[in-house]
Amino acid sequence: MTTPHLSPLLTDLYQLTMMHGYWKNGMHEQQAVFDVYFRRNPFDGGYAVWAGLEPVLDFLVGLRFGPADLDYLGTLGLFEPEFLAALAGWRFTGRAESFPEGSVVFPHEPLLTVTAPLWEAQLVETAMLNTLNFQTLIASKAARCVSVIGAPAEGGGILVEFGTRRAQGPDGALSAARAAYIGGAVATSNVLAGKQYGLPVVGTHAHAWVESFSDELTAFRAYAQLHPDSTTLLLDTIDTLASGLPNAVTVAGELRARGHELRAVRLDSGDLAYLSRRVRAGLDAAGFPGVKIMASNDLSEEVIASVIREGGRLDIYAVGTQLVTGGGAGGGALGGVYKLAELGGLPRMKLTGDPTKTSLPGAKRVWRGVEPGSRRHAWDVITLDAEPTPSAGQRVSDPANPLRSSRLPAGLEWHNPRQVMIEGGQRAAPAEALSAIQARARDELARLPEGTLRLLNPHTYRVSLSAALQQSRDRLIAELHGDGASEQ
Amino acid sequence: MTTPHLSPLLTDLYQLTMMHGYWKNGMHEQQAVFDVYFRRNPFDGGYAVWAGLEPVLDFLVGLRFGPADLDYLGTLGLFEPEFLAALAGWRFTGRAESFPEGSVVFPHEPLLTVTAPLWEAQLVETAMLNTLNFQTLIASKAARCVSVIGAPAEGGGILVEFGTRRAQGPDGALSAARAAYIGGAVATSNVLAGKQYGLPVVGTHAHAWVESFSDELTAFRAYAQLHPDSTTLLLDTIDTLASGLPNAVTVAGELRARGHELRAVRLDSGDLAYLSRRVRAGLDAAGFPGVKIMASNDLSEEVIASVIREGGRLDIYAVGTQLVTGGGAGGGALGGVYKLAELGGLPRMKLTGDPTKTSLPGAKRVWRGVEPGSRRHAWDVITLDAEPTPSAGQRVSDPANPLRSSRLPAGLEWHNPRQVMIEGGQRAAPAEALSAIQARARDELARLPEGTLRLLNPHTYRVSLSAALQQSRDRLIAELHGDGASEQ
Repeated sequence: MTTPHLSPLLTDLYQLTMMHGYWKNGMHEQQAVFDVYFRRNPFDGGYAVWAGLEPVLDFLVGLRFGPADLDYLGTLGLFEPEFLAALAGWRFTGRAESFPEGSVVFPHEPLLTVTAPLWEAQLVETAMLNTLNFQTLIASKAARCVSVIGAPAEGGGILVEFGTRRAQGPDGALSAARAAYIGGAVATSNVLAGKQYGLPVVGTHAHAWVESFSDELTAFRAYAQLHPDSTTLLLDTIDTLASGLPNAVTVAGELRARGHELRAVRLDSGDLAYLSRRVRAGLDAAGFPGVKIMASNDLSEEVIASVIREGGRLDIYAVGTQLVTGGGAGGGALGGVYKLAELGGLPRMKLTGDPTKTSLPGAKRVWRGVEPGSRRHAWDVITLDAEPTPSAGQRVSDPANPLRSSRLPAGLEWHNPRQVMIEGGQRAAPAEALSAIQARARDELARLPEGTLRLLNPHTYRVSLSAALQQSRDRLIAELHGDGASEQ
Repeated sequence: MTTPHLSPLLTDLYQLTMMHGYWKNGMHEQQAVFDVYFRRNPFDGGYAVWAGLEPVLDFLVGLRFGPADLDYLGTLGLFEPEFLAALAGWRFTGRAESFPEGSVVFPHEPLLTVTAPLWEAQLVETAMLNTLNFQTLIASKAARCVSVIGAPAEGGGILVEFGTRRAQGPDGALSAARAAYIGGAVATSNVLAGKQYGLPVVGTHAHAWVESFSDELTAFRAYAQLHPDSTTLLLDTIDTLASGLPNAVTVAGELRARGHELRAVRLDSGDLAYLSRRVRAGLDAAGFPGVKIMASNDLSEEVIASVIREGGRLDIYAVGTQLVTGGGAGGGALGGVYKLAELGGLPRMKLTGDPTKTSLPGAKRVWRGVEPGSRRHAWDVITLDAEPTPSAGQRVSDPANPLRSSRLPAGLEWHNPRQVMIEGGQRAAPAEALSAIQARARDELARLPEGTLRLLNPHTYRVSLSAALQQSRDRLIAELHGDGASEQ
């Protein structure tokens, strides 16, 4: 597990000028509490899969200013030499509490809480959000694809990530491969991601392979020769049904005569529902029902759903652009933010003219209520740090609309799903293997209430605020508005 | 100028298995010609700004397989030891011809042509496309924003890039900062991008700064104290008009009394058209007409256009998410591809069932026709490599629709806009400074035909195929279809 950029300069300039200001005003050692949260689920969906945490924890414990960093900052003419000297010894000494990576999470919940001296907590905002926003977006996208594909055992298929060439920069590709795996992809085509994260790597061949030979059949034979037990042939360089399919059947027969089986064929253009049915029928009729069909033509969860609805017969879904860029409605970026909740023991918040952007003040806790029998997640409640375990009948309110309140149902088992990951600047829990993170995501997704996985207009998972937190927020709003109401 | 990943493993697995196959079949040294091109302008616009070239050239000349790379490949069980031994001495020995970075380019044009032994040209596809697709997308997005904002001298404003926290991974942020600068952004908030690429860095302060003090006015005063000549104050932590504006005016007055001027205020929520008019009026009335107004609330070229239409008074547009992720309709990713055009001196192409995906066979040349007086770009023509300069009256056809043909007009001056960038695996031209690339983009954008810059339904710049190229393509299609027509 490596982090591409452990540089403290992977940050917005204002973090450094604010640190300078806190330092100059003698405020930099004040204990601060910041929360990472987002306000809307990605893709207008019903959930997000929390990803990017392990790289962020590596970042927090490993962050140092090197001599070249300080030299560069000196050239900007913004910082006093004494401040830069203080940065030479700077490191993150605080605490990080978070949902474990791979957890299913929801809007308004404090996902990661950083408790640290103000100038430490301030610096790390940008890089943490960069990593968490992107990887959570991609893990959620992968989970959406998998939710439509279904498990192979139930007649579904598998998801593989094929997006490097359209990803947003080299780390866009690497981080996406990692996050897609967390969300349920079984492999990537990206070899460096395979090496770096220990992910399974897979591949087929390109059109250029076929074009490099005198004819398609010769090209197929040469490729099958290389890996007789793991060959996937691309059918559409000339014509999927008129040329690719019969040539693949010929090669499958030749392989079988030598004791091997063709693994799969790939469709990369045209009407995937129609072509996959025709190719499936052709392979079956020729005696090759075990040959899988892969598709790789601008897939997304919506395209996959439509191909399945129309009786498509795909086994392997190679999703590229839409997966690694988190494309589609409500995608492109997760709007996760990092907001000051407490400073020197006192709650803080920002108001702004936009009520949906008002933050939740104070050090908080998240409780998750689970149905004991089904183990299904049922209800999350955000409380002040010191409140007791939620209980049946307790009044709670909607984070986005304080007028909407309800009472917690009976029969739920409540637990704190977050864990202390860093304490005193050191890892408080061992790093997790990606396979364990992927397994957690799979388990948590399976435990969501019915309808939460739906692509469009999903069930809204219940997330509420305790009355004490709501009152604390109201009190602070009144204090901040103080002498005058807004004109806007 | 550094490249984040010079690793040969930043590639799709199939590039390596195909290399293995070419090598095994004794084909790897055959001379191949591949073209990079895209099929649709990003954002449904009228052009793209070519970006990412310098990092790609660095990549091509620097690429080597290290011992750890070869060890990892050995663990995959796919490659013969002799092949891995051959990779140890592998390097790119070919040629790269390209539009200079910052050029304005269009669909179907061969933007970058790689001529090299087949196994060299094949390997580099994925990483090149990754970099070129992303940076071209972002440079084009920045150019769209700038085209709406207009130049400061003409009552417009400036664009700055503020997107790191929502970018797609660390390099998503760094590459985006670089590409946004090429497309016309004047600065970035990303300090590492500033260090790495020599870009100007800028910043303001966060809501957390205000919340960390007893009140907003104290916070503003403390910040202005730090950099009295370059302070930007964020107005919306409590209430933009009721609190932020009057406090900023107070601080601007105190600064002036000490011989300084407040540089700017920032709006980060609410109705930007309304608020910026009110803030402008407030600042002007208080005697501060020189204080600039910056906005940073989920801006895009469309939002900017609408704020301007409604009389908004913004001077500095800090665009984040939408800029660094290339968001919006027709965005998210540029679909650039890399297709084999020639092998061993013979033209090659792929057909597929989808006619829009048919490639242009053979080694080709691009000609750009310019109006001599205005210096405006008027018409691009793609020809076979050996054809003479285009001439008036010559019949040409539409790349996407061969039935649409026209004759080239008289009075254009034709030149080859592409240059040999790498020859024999070495740089054939010096690396360019980013400021020169930015200047080229600015010049080329100004020389586009009227309406090409329009955000929606722009003028379609003319790109044509020569008759000889069109005939070569038709001939090859007939040969490939040979004995049977497609059923699909």
